[in-house]
Amino acid sequence: MKPVKVGICGLGTVGGGTFNVLKRNAEEIARRAGRGIEVAQIGARSSNPRCDTSDTPVTSVLEVADNPDIDIVIELIGGYTVARELVMKAIDNGKHVVTANKALIAVHGNEIFAKAREKGVIVAFEASVAGGIPIIKAIREGLAGNQINWLAGIINGTGNFILTEMREKGRTFDDVLKEAQALGYAEADPTFDVEGIDAAHKLTILASIAFGVPLQFDKAYTEGITRLTTADVNYAEALGYRIKHLGMARRTEAGIELRVHPTLIPADRLIANVNGVMNAVMVNGDAVGSTLFYGAGAGMEPTASAVVADVVDVVRAMTSDPENRVPHLAFQPDALSDHPVLPISACASAYYLRIQAKDHPGVLAQVASILSERGINIESIMQKEAEEHDGLVPMILLTHQVIEQKIDDAIAAMEGLEGVAGKVMRIRVEQLN
Amino acid sequence: MKPVKVGICGLGTVGGGTFNVLKRNAEEIARRAGRGIEVAQIGARSSNPRCDTSDTPVTSVLEVADNPDIDIVIELIGGYTVARELVMKAIDNGKHVVTANKALIAVHGNEIFAKAREKGVIVAFEASVAGGIPIIKAIREGLAGNQINWLAGIINGTGNFILTEMREKGRTFDDVLKEAQALGYAEADPTFDVEGIDAAHKLTILASIAFGVPLQFDKAYTEGITRLTTADVNYAEALGYRIKHLGMARRTEAGIELRVHPTLIPADRLIANVNGVMNAVMVNGDAVGSTLFYGAGAGMEPTASAVVADVVDVVRAMTSDPENRVPHLAFQPDALSDHPVLPISACASAYYLRIQAKDHPGVLAQVASILSERGINIESIMQKEAEEHDGLVPMILLTHQVIEQKIDDAIAAMEGLEGVAGKVMRIRVEQLN
Repeated sequence: MKPVKVGICGLGTVGGGTFNVLKRNAEEIARRAGRGIEVAQIGARSSNPRCDTSDTPVTSVLEVADNPDIDIVIELIGGYTVARELVMKAIDNGKHVVTANKALIAVHGNEIFAKAREKGVIVAFEASVAGGIPIIKAIREGLAGNQINWLAGIINGTGNFILTEMREKGRTFDDVLKEAQALGYAEADPTFDVEGIDAAHKLTILASIAFGVPLQFDKAYTEGITRLTTADVNYAEALGYRIKHLGMARRTEAGIELRVHPTLIPADRLIANVNGVMNAVMVNGDAVGSTLFYGAGAGMEPTASAVVADVVDVVRAMTSDPENRVPHLAFQPDALSDHPVLPISACASAYYLRIQAKDHPGVLAQVASILSERGINIESIMQKEAEEHDGLVPMILLTHQVIEQKIDDAIAAMEGLEGVAGKVMRIRVEQLN
Repeated sequence: MKPVKVGICGLGTVGGGTFNVLKRNAEEIARRAGRGIEVAQIGARSSNPRCDTSDTPVTSVLEVADNPDIDIVIELIGGYTVARELVMKAIDNGKHVVTANKALIAVHGNEIFAKAREKGVIVAFEASVAGGIPIIKAIREGLAGNQINWLAGIINGTGNFILTEMREKGRTFDDVLKEAQALGYAEADPTFDVEGIDAAHKLTILASIAFGVPLQFDKAYTEGITRLTTADVNYAEALGYRIKHLGMARRTEAGIELRVHPTLIPADRLIANVNGVMNAVMVNGDAVGSTLFYGAGAGMEPTASAVVADVVDVVRAMTSDPENRVPHLAFQPDALSDHPVLPISACASAYYLRIQAKDHPGVLAQVASILSERGINIESIMQKEAEEHDGLVPMILLTHQVIEQKIDDAIAAMEGLEGVAGKVMRIRVEQLN
């Protein structure tokens, strides 16, 4: 059979990795796919010193979508603007698309998939979540027999690197962030990573394919890791927990929880032991129970691994009846559910509270009564010695599971107590059984 | 579209689970697959008290393969004899097959896939390895862009339960085995589990789809966990390792290593922390690096999860051109490689050696010279106090990586020393980076 011709748009880290993997493993990939996959064109403004593209014609990005010889457009430029234009143009021209662009899919995916359906083409996006881990495929196909109950993921490597360093070496957030920037793990503007926006993009995609709801990035709750102190990391450790920046999606009777925030996880859970820049996603289904998928969440070749797997999938599916393909969002487009995404105030979680008490025994009684009046049960209490510099006594509580609105209300009451100094630190706790 | 009609053959644990999951999640599954999946017939000798099959016709197993209404035959009876006859008959009749039968695939898969290809039907077998973990799909499709370097799996839950109990509670192998049998984790004849035959079946399948070689169960090396002592478990722990019963497949220039045996793994590896009956498989690819896939490796509904996912896959692919489907063994049948499976004597590994010395300082010098004469480097040495009852001094060595033949030769020389009592205990060590 004739080789399939692909055009790679964007020759940065992932584009360069994709080019190199397709070249290096060409024979192995053809043995699997049953036909060759040829990089027939590259759309890029500049070359990549790590790629030998001397045999491949290079043009501007949008021209690739117009090249009649190209079967599959691989969008690896990132961002919402040109990437969106490129993808829509490629679809309009009847080309299949492979993309690693989580922001594009999370924000414009509904529109993109509708257009792709109209044109009978595939838009594949495995590389958009958790790099080389085939998590989209696992949820969309591998667990297709299940009703997914929840999923929880460490899906931002930069954030996990920072939390790992804070825990293992007692370093501060700011200190590690600077190193991460120097190492190239974090951007000069780290907002997307440390405020959980990047993770929320990925979580939005995972939740859609797990629960069969449209992409609703604007409804995801996002809380970053910038406020975490080494004290909290250490108290969590003493209580038998680790703090991870988790993307969490859960289906309840009332609706779907969709939230990214620092989370205490029991230290003996596998996911609590995922360290450094590595990613992992747990998925809990009614038949399979809990599963975990682990690997490199970013990087030149790990992400390329997912891009190339998508290309092979497209090569196999492109000759099939569009109605029998795996639906973009795992569920048939006319079978998506309107189960609502819950506001964070209606989400349920257990909580870690750190209260700075001026007068420990008295405050404990008041705090306990604030919680008990609201029907919030205390799981455990830890009191530490006064910190020398301010004489305040840190009081750490773990609560049972409760609706967020109630804990917010309780915290407001605690912060109104005369014996409590400053803000109460609140971190959610998940058991992830 | 008309529902797809499946026949479930075998209504034991997995068959019952498959029946129940298909019923309970019928709506969710149809929302994904785009059409209903109906259990139109059951082939079984007896009913399953955990299934309400009152609405479903029950017949003898082989009749299901002859029922012209059935599109997909689900083989869940196990064993080689009737299962093989059923699968071949179903294929002959142009039916697609889903099976959870690792022994059947590992031993007769080449013949079965050849026949399926001739008839243009699919034989899906995700449930045959690691229960609910979609590991076949991950390797065959999700990592299709990679040259797989190696894979390593905890793929027998019974064995892992025994090793976990030995380590966590200091219990003996025999003691835990009896409990596992009482709990139903282990068979009355536990040979398949504890001698590694079950794991070798699964490893054979994983190695074929990872490296693109025919199934060669007869060439897999198998070593059980029956000789492991709590002393070895504790020494390993003291050295920073855990002992797991690992299925290990590695591609080298010389050939493919295919081996199941107890293995020391650094305690901080994620896979070293997979406990109880849970399974996990690490896969290392040239682009993606190391990945890990974790979940329940057996049980009624976890295994059913994989069976049903296969059914959904078959429903999607059954209308497609057979040439464009995912090949049974991941690589096109005419592109399988004849890269040989290596005999265990030619496999490379690091080793843990436990030597019972009568006279410690003298023996150490002799042992060191035996190793050094054969070019085997010592990574570390641990000497323990004499055990009271026999006055023998346990001497534990970790070697660098070496070809097995050399270590066998060295062990033979050590066992010939006058100062060494009995056999040298030898356990392989893998770093699994």
